[in-house]
Amino acid sequence: MVRRSGRRPGNQDTKQSILEAARQVFAERGFDKASIRAIAGDAGVDPALVHHYFGTKEKLFLASMNSPVDPSELLPAALSGPREEAGLRLVRLVLGIWDSPAGAAAVALMRSAMSNEWTARLLREFVVTQVLRRAVAELGIDEKEAPLRSALMATQIAGLAVVRYILKVEPVASADAEQLVAAVGPSVQRYLTDDLPGVF
Amino acid sequence: MVRRSGRRPGNQDTKQSILEAARQVFAERGFDKASIRAIAGDAGVDPALVHHYFGTKEKLFLASMNSPVDPSELLPAALSGPREEAGLRLVRLVLGIWDSPAGAAAVALMRSAMSNEWTARLLREFVVTQVLRRAVAELGIDEKEAPLRSALMATQIAGLAVVRYILKVEPVASADAEQLVAAVGPSVQRYLTDDLPGVF
Repeated sequence: MVRRSGRRPGNQDTKQSILEAARQVFAERGFDKASIRAIAGDAGVDPALVHHYFGTKEKLFLASMNSPVDPSELLPAALSGPREEAGLRLVRLVLGIWDSPAGAAAVALMRSAMSNEWTARLLREFVVTQVLRRAVAELGIDEKEAPLRSALMATQIAGLAVVRYILKVEPVASADAEQLVAAVGPSVQRYLTDDLPGVF
Repeated sequence: MVRRSGRRPGNQDTKQSILEAARQVFAERGFDKASIRAIAGDAGVDPALVHHYFGTKEKLFLASMNSPVDPSELLPAALSGPREEAGLRLVRLVLGIWDSPAGAAAVALMRSAMSNEWTARLLREFVVTQVLRRAVAELGIDEKEAPLRSALMATQIAGLAVVRYILKVEPVASADAEQLVAAVGPSVQRYLTDDLPGVF
């Protein structure tokens, strides 16, 4: 075996192995079916060590994606309050994150997901299990309608991010955030809670 | 000078040089300010040759982007008919293209635009000058409101494409096209023609 120069076994290598195994397992099995045990097995470490370094499965998932934010910390405030304004609050939250220093990491993640099937799977799992599932539960959306409603919401929010931050189509690219909240919020609200004739 | 092996000067090389010059000039100056003369100059050929091979500036632009479709042929049918259903018809047209064999080229173009600043500029020019500008003119949208309305429409349509064809979030990824037309069409219509309180 060739010892790689300049690197020694240690915490950083172990953490890196766990993160690589986590990306692989989360992408292959999806978030729900991935287990800390399987990830530890792939990384060749004890499951207790995974918990020690990363805490919960959610935290490990966020770390493996280099997520700049933790939706479990940010979503509750956006989701509480009048139900008929949840769309506005969600768009405001998303723009707040992307317009902040964390936005650069979000752009990098989105770009990578566009060109790499594995990152696309991870991003899909992230959006579905960490964002949409919480939104649907908190807003009390009909269980049968929830998957389509939340994926429709994702079309509008992903598109806003792509056009504003990646393709940079004006005037959306440099519009004031509150103008976009007023413009796009009602479309998100429609997907969340309005009647959708011809759909359901 | 080293002569590249296996290639001879000829029509294919000339066409390729013109297409490369076109991509460069369209991305640098934008569609409106790019001229056949400037492109011919960069490619080191006579402008008449560019017209001979590619026809109009529009056709050259589409060829330089590997566009799978020509919006000037497809848009008129989608834009004619009841104005209050233009959103439905536009979503139907977009899904029809992306669900067809041409969809693979559209996915490739979108992916490339996400990771490459130059392709992003070309795609932005394409969307603005070839699609949105026609839609706005045909639908008689207020000139001052048109840029923002059409960019908002782009957020919804780009997002639908990203979620259905690239990230493949279910159930949007495998939904029936007409179900998505019913779901997303009214959001596009809203951006095109509805009052947008807090925006204008």
